[in-house]
Amino acid sequence: MSELRSRIGGELAPAMRRFGSSVDLDRRLVDEDIAGSMAHATMLGETGILSPDAAAALVGGLKEIREEWRDGTFSPGDDFEDIHMAVEARLVEKVGPVGGALHTARSRNDQIATDLRLWMRNKLEEMDSAVTALMEAILTRVDGDGHILIPGFTHLQRGQPILLGHHLLAHIWALSRDRERLGGARSRVDACPLGSCAMAGTSFPVDRDRTATLLGFGSVMENAMDAASARDHVIETVSALAILAIHLSCMAEELVLWSSSEFGLVELDGSYASSSSIMPQKRNPDAAELVRGHSGRSTGALMGLVVLLKGLPLAYNRDLQEDRFHLYTAVDSTLICLEVLRGVYATLGIRADRYEETLVGDPSLATELADHLVSKGLPFRDAHDRVARLVARLDADGRGLDDLSPNELSTLDSDLGRAELTVLLDPREATNRKRSRGGTAPEEISRQVGLLRETLKGKTGNPE
Amino acid sequence: MSELRSRIGGELAPAMRRFGSSVDLDRRLVDEDIAGSMAHATMLGETGILSPDAAAALVGGLKEIREEWRDGTFSPGDDFEDIHMAVEARLVEKVGPVGGALHTARSRNDQIATDLRLWMRNKLEEMDSAVTALMEAILTRVDGDGHILIPGFTHLQRGQPILLGHHLLAHIWALSRDRERLGGARSRVDACPLGSCAMAGTSFPVDRDRTATLLGFGSVMENAMDAASARDHVIETVSALAILAIHLSCMAEELVLWSSSEFGLVELDGSYASSSSIMPQKRNPDAAELVRGHSGRSTGALMGLVVLLKGLPLAYNRDLQEDRFHLYTAVDSTLICLEVLRGVYATLGIRADRYEETLVGDPSLATELADHLVSKGLPFRDAHDRVARLVARLDADGRGLDDLSPNELSTLDSDLGRAELTVLLDPREATNRKRSRGGTAPEEISRQVGLLRETLKGKTGNPE
Amino acid sequence: MSELRSRIGGELAPAMRRFGSSVDLDRRLVDEDIAGSMAHATMLGETGILSPDAAAALVGGLKEIREEWRDGTFSPGDDFEDIHMAVEARLVEKVGPVGGALHTARSRNDQIATDLRLWMRNKLEEMDSAVTALMEAILTRVDGDGHILIPGFTHLQRGQPILLGHHLLAHIWALSRDRERLGGARSRVDACPLGSCAMAGTSFPVDRDRTATLLGFGSVMENAMDAASARDHVIETVSALAILAIHLSCMAEELVLWSSSEFGLVELDGSYASSSSIMPQKRNPDAAELVRGHSGRSTGALMGLVVLLKGLPLAYNRDLQEDRFHLYTAVDSTLICLEVLRGVYATLGIRADRYEETLVGDPSLATELADHLVSKGLPFRDAHDRVARLVARLDADGRGLDDLSPNELSTLDSDLGRAELTVLLDPREATNRKRSRGGTAPEEISRQVGLLRETLKGKTGNPE
Amino acid sequence: MSELRSRIGGELAPAMRRFGSSVDLDRRLVDEDIAGSMAHATMLGETGILSPDAAAALVGGLKEIREEWRDGTFSPGDDFEDIHMAVEARLVEKVGPVGGALHTARSRNDQIATDLRLWMRNKLEEMDSAVTALMEAILTRVDGDGHILIPGFTHLQRGQPILLGHHLLAHIWALSRDRERLGGARSRVDACPLGSCAMAGTSFPVDRDRTATLLGFGSVMENAMDAASARDHVIETVSALAILAIHLSCMAEELVLWSSSEFGLVELDGSYASSSSIMPQKRNPDAAELVRGHSGRSTGALMGLVVLLKGLPLAYNRDLQEDRFHLYTAVDSTLICLEVLRGVYATLGIRADRYEETLVGDPSLATELADHLVSKGLPFRDAHDRVARLVARLDADGRGLDDLSPNELSTLDSDLGRAELTVLLDPREATNRKRSRGGTAPEEISRQVGLLRETLKGKTGNPE
Repeated sequence: MSELRSRIGGELAPAMRRFGSSVDLDRRLVDEDIAGSMAHATMLGETGILSPDAAAALVGGLKEIREEWRDGTFSPGDDFEDIHMAVEARLVEKVGPVGGALHTARSRNDQIATDLRLWMRNKLEEMDSAVTALMEAILTRVDGDGHILIPGFTHLQRGQPILLGHHLLAHIWALSRDRERLGGARSRVDACPLGSCAMAGTSFPVDRDRTATLLGFGSVMENAMDAASARDHVIETVSALAILAIHLSCMAEELVLWSSSEFGLVELDGSYASSSSIMPQKRNPDAAELVRGHSGRSTGALMGLVVLLKGLPLAYNRDLQEDRFHLYTAVDSTLICLEVLRGVYATLGIRADRYEETLVGDPSLATELADHLVSKGLPFRDAHDRVARLVARLDADGRGLDDLSPNELSTLDSDLGRAELTVLLDPREATNRKRSRGGTAPEEISRQVGLLRETLKGKTGNPE
Repeated sequence: MSELRSRIGGELAPAMRRFGSSVDLDRRLVDEDIAGSMAHATMLGETGILSPDAAAALVGGLKEIREEWRDGTFSPGDDFEDIHMAVEARLVEKVGPVGGALHTARSRNDQIATDLRLWMRNKLEEMDSAVTALMEAILTRVDGDGHILIPGFTHLQRGQPILLGHHLLAHIWALSRDRERLGGARSRVDACPLGSCAMAGTSFPVDRDRTATLLGFGSVMENAMDAASARDHVIETVSALAILAIHLSCMAEELVLWSSSEFGLVELDGSYASSSSIMPQKRNPDAAELVRGHSGRSTGALMGLVVLLKGLPLAYNRDLQEDRFHLYTAVDSTLICLEVLRGVYATLGIRADRYEETLVGDPSLATELADHLVSKGLPFRDAHDRVARLVARLDADGRGLDDLSPNELSTLDSDLGRAELTVLLDPREATNRKRSRGGTAPEEISRQVGLLRETLKGKTGNPE
Repeated sequence: MSELRSRIGGELAPAMRRFGSSVDLDRRLVDEDIAGSMAHATMLGETGILSPDAAAALVGGLKEIREEWRDGTFSPGDDFEDIHMAVEARLVEKVGPVGGALHTARSRNDQIATDLRLWMRNKLEEMDSAVTALMEAILTRVDGDGHILIPGFTHLQRGQPILLGHHLLAHIWALSRDRERLGGARSRVDACPLGSCAMAGTSFPVDRDRTATLLGFGSVMENAMDAASARDHVIETVSALAILAIHLSCMAEELVLWSSSEFGLVELDGSYASSSSIMPQKRNPDAAELVRGHSGRSTGALMGLVVLLKGLPLAYNRDLQEDRFHLYTAVDSTLICLEVLRGVYATLGIRADRYEETLVGDPSLATELADHLVSKGLPFRDAHDRVARLVARLDADGRGLDDLSPNELSTLDSDLGRAELTVLLDPREATNRKRSRGGTAPEEISRQVGLLRETLKGKTGNPE
Repeated sequence: MSELRSRIGGELAPAMRRFGSSVDLDRRLVDEDIAGSMAHATMLGETGILSPDAAAALVGGLKEIREEWRDGTFSPGDDFEDIHMAVEARLVEKVGPVGGALHTARSRNDQIATDLRLWMRNKLEEMDSAVTALMEAILTRVDGDGHILIPGFTHLQRGQPILLGHHLLAHIWALSRDRERLGGARSRVDACPLGSCAMAGTSFPVDRDRTATLLGFGSVMENAMDAASARDHVIETVSALAILAIHLSCMAEELVLWSSSEFGLVELDGSYASSSSIMPQKRNPDAAELVRGHSGRSTGALMGLVVLLKGLPLAYNRDLQEDRFHLYTAVDSTLICLEVLRGVYATLGIRADRYEETLVGDPSLATELADHLVSKGLPFRDAHDRVARLVARLDADGRGLDDLSPNELSTLDSDLGRAELTVLLDPREATNRKRSRGGTAPEEISRQVGLLRETLKGKTGNPE
């Protein structure tokens, strides 16, 4: 590092050394950094900016350092300002002064931007697989348990009977949009900044297309200043993860609710639950609670990034080093949440009979009566009103819908027989009737499962 | 409203009436609400769910209400729970009890979801135009003033001389990615939830494809529960606006900086500046400061939405009504900021000569010397080090790079003549040399301008 | 306004006029602005900076404007940059050129800072009353329904039987800390910036203590630059409101949960509930859901303020105008939430018998058994383990704790008789035994009620 | 852990083990956890809940574990669910089955709440010292460099000449309010939850006052449910840190600005600056940029906490484990920022003469002229207007205020002589005249320094 500080002289204050070193943050980028340097050195040789020998020496040395890194014999410490300088120093140790030629036509600004994009590209692929795996785990439950009858809730009140598959599919569709968003972020990530140098470009005849190709980038950032300092792809990625985290918090909230004695619909497998240190009977849905709580990480990271970037003028400012702190927090949290939640769904105990009988005659079938009256020609608003008054009266008497007296029945609809009423108020029949596109009827569930399986065959969720 | 409350009875508490009414929020959705209802009524007639006469009556009544709304004779008040009920009530006044048939096979849950998507679609188009207009305004300045020489800053320190066009283009590229993100959001917005009813679908044989087509939607939401309660497209949209706001805050920060006496590069036109109530000499860059400050609105709205949606179980919960508060805040703030900033750039006074002479011999040309030494065969790190020591010595003596003594010059590079040095240290020459792809050389600026004009011809920024 | 723009000339662009005018934001501050000006004019007269006649004319004119404002005949429009200029212009209309002397030794920077602090002081008092009123409403429910037996939940699993009063008191204690935080914010708000002028103080011999006293401030801001630009008291206030909103969201969440058929513990009064437009049987806990959703407003406002203020250099920047947007959002939202929630608790239907029998023999009494074994000399961990295994076995058999066979009973504790077991497993007895300080026993509930009533007698919650 | 899982059976899934273990988070709480356990065991012995021998064994064993922890021979791993269980397990190894008696009349809920409060109390004291140290470092600069003449900025435009001391004091006063807020948070932290057990209290005759006293707490949490689950003191603390971070970001922004060539007022010492990897002349104000960027950490943590806690019902939920992630982030970031910034101020190079001559005749003296006219009897608004027009004319001619022609001078004020004008436009004289309370005059700076030194003598900044 002393080389870099020859303009300034002296040493960093100890607190500043700890504060300023990004080695801790960037240790995760060593592989990407070496890959970027290898591509850069290759291009420097190909374009004649460096001699073929020099380029070969650099590439060879970098390969060795990569091996050392992977087998643990090279480990950059906090005595370096960042991993770029640590790698370069190791390279000079290995290949001599020519190692110092690696940084020709490059700056740490475009270098770190490249490293980070390579890392993000990998992680976004990993993320896509993890989201897909969760979708598949839930789809499997739809296959096996989708027919279970439950109340559909709105306002956490029982609204209408539905099938569990209908409910679970809502989550899967939300996840499929998360995949699209992650795909959109990836398309912005997938542009190569290498060769932009500090922000002005360079006088050396670099071939930026070549390095982009060598690194597998889909495109090249068109403006050097933008390339070296843009971080909107980081906020966008973390924003997509925050939205995903909100979706996961919704699933988690439901699992917690459904695990309560009161709902009693599901039980987390012991491998995802815990007991209490004091109350011996407890089986707590810890995995779901932790996933719900982790929503604070990705959303906090999002806000941290927003605050970080607000009001910064162009171009590179040292503040940008902090982008990784927030990005890593969001990526790590999301990946573990996805994995855990997948396990939770895969092993979830579901009490298939919890609601089967409870829903017979339940007030949540009132819509069936109202819709029936509409089919007899009553305007919906009148039908709704008439049934609402009836329900209020029954409720006051502690009676259910199936306790209608013959008199009440004939007042409602003189043609409606008891047998017909029974069918009308059968919750399974009610779900079977909801055959509108996207409705809870079994055939609609099957149709959606088919569509989703089709989507999941594709490599990514993004049509872009 | 009394009709809806027949199950509950009684009146709302006055505070609750104020608190719960969404009329204030939804007044902006009346047009969309009527459009949605007209499509729904049309479909009800076409499918035979309602008689042709009934459907025609509904459509006719709705058309009249739309006229009344537009000419101000219909104005829903807080005595209605929401605008849906206000419109329905007016419809019943107009066409009689059959008005109550409008709500057949529909719920307020899918209705409001539809209204909001229609509104968002329009606003996202308006937003795309506004971003495009800002991009064009800046491009015009690149055309006219792009050749002006300024320091390129990193860490707010002078890094290397660049052209103003290079700098301004960085902002335009960022905006072009904002357009892409807004386009991505639009693709998620553009799916029709109408006909999903409360969350279970319906027993009526609705034709959801038909209403989607009538309303111009690109697709149909596939799951009724998801359709009625998903709000990730709202967070995604506000998130895209928040990222855009961060970009605008960056431009605004720079304008404030550059307007200071110390930078002295630009002066906001009087139509965007203000004076002080106490200091008569002041010309404050108010427009830029306010744009910078407005970044708090979109980002606060983003956070508000995240908090709103965290931990909500499926499906519709009344909390969701709050989505509009945050969405409107972000949309309104962004549109006015885009318009004002466009005006600021269009009228900005730029002092073309501010840096022209100042940069001659400026330390920010040190990289030129280092690169020169590299071209003579020195490894970059050594060249960097050697020049850095030289700069430190000159700085201590209060000398500039062009004050190099013959001795110092020959120590640096014995072949380097004074004339060659002068060219090397000429800031314009330095920018001309940065011809790498994306560099600050004039031809690279022209190339980018061409690319961007091509993009702006397309209707949207999104390749999706 | 033309006067102020004599340095700049020309007119504001129309978009900028809309964008920059704070009249809309500041209309809420007119009373405070006039009060501040009257105090300032009085002091200018007393110190001889203005003649007694001039001061009297200013004060007299301001009094009239205050009347006009209150009866609606004075209404500043968007053609003024802000309300200060509108009031001054009206004053000049009334008293002639001497009106222009009002702004002697004052700047809009210290003026708006003063106005805002006066407004905040009033609102913080109103807030304290509203929090107190909510505390009292819940305390009244503790008095009347505190004895109702419910499960105490952790992880939303039944933990141990408790009394409803114990649970409700937890919320009241949280609110009492909110009062303390609001009191802390008020102590920072209660310092007068008037007379600091733009940021440097003034050459006029102003008496800042006098204006502070006239306006009832507790202290004087000691540094003019700090006085004119500090906004930490605004973030602090909104932060206290955001924490309060989180507490309210917790109460609201519970009310929603408890209103579900599954929990079935409470029913929101019809005056705070709504029905569904499609499902006639619904009684939705709307008030609670909206309060929960409103947590997004105060927390979004907090985030907005943080983003607004991040990275602003000293001193006044126009960005600061935006502080009010966020402050108003948080204050308005909190006040209506407090009022509505108070009404909800005051009218809440509680099913006193919901859990009375359900909890007999409930696994949530397992801790009683374990504690009993400890009292017989077993280390707690062993007791816990032994009871946990027993519960697991009973659970597998579908038996309750009171279904223990004689054999199981004697294995557990050979001295434990059936009668003693019955007492041990009686949920009421269990709550009676929790007499530790802060426990759920009735006497502890009474003790806390006494303490809290004592606190509520004091004017503020803050011991500062 | 197997003991705790006897109800559930089986093992945790590997991903869940990693996800759920809080050992990593809680390793920082081991000292506090042992201290809490020792106080608890002591009390259990004193009250006779345990025998004196048993209590002594527990305390003795805990002391040994504390030694092992401190010398590194005890290190809880991820195979434990949390550190509480790890410590208990080690205790049982040491003292046999009686170790299992430690958890009598205690739950992990009140235990972790106690640990965290102990840790926060310590950190809040450390924080108070660190804020104080920064205040003292800046005060020292006021002493030494407070007399330096600089422009006072508003809108980043030169407003009026001030002394550097006046400006720096504004930051110190802001920090003094931060100390007050931290003190307020500490008063809420300083209440003991130990003995509340899971949330219901306990049947054992615990003496909660005794444990509170042993642990040095100022008070006892009055409600067991509140005690075990309240986290508002955590948000409050992080909120106070976020506001502090905003203040630090303001100082940092200024240091970055002032370090630019354009402002050229300060230069960060080499021990807090860095150079560029490519531009050899750079001296980047890295420390200031990183402090500015770190504002994203505390504010992100604040938002993370808000999201975490929103909508959680009472009482303990596993989500709460996440509180520490955010709290640690904010505390660690703030402490290092305070330390670094203190070093930056202590070593800052200030160019005392930067503005001394530049400000002579600067337009920022226009207020002096206007105030002079007021002293001659002109209403301020007229004086302001007259001077503004004059400045506009001079500006157009490229003249300064001291270039007034005799004619212009006499038009302005026929009595004003050239000599008097020179004094009026002398920037030092202008600052000397600002003797109003809090003004920039040297005696006001001295007065404030005296006040602040008095405050800093007190142990805390909080008058509570």
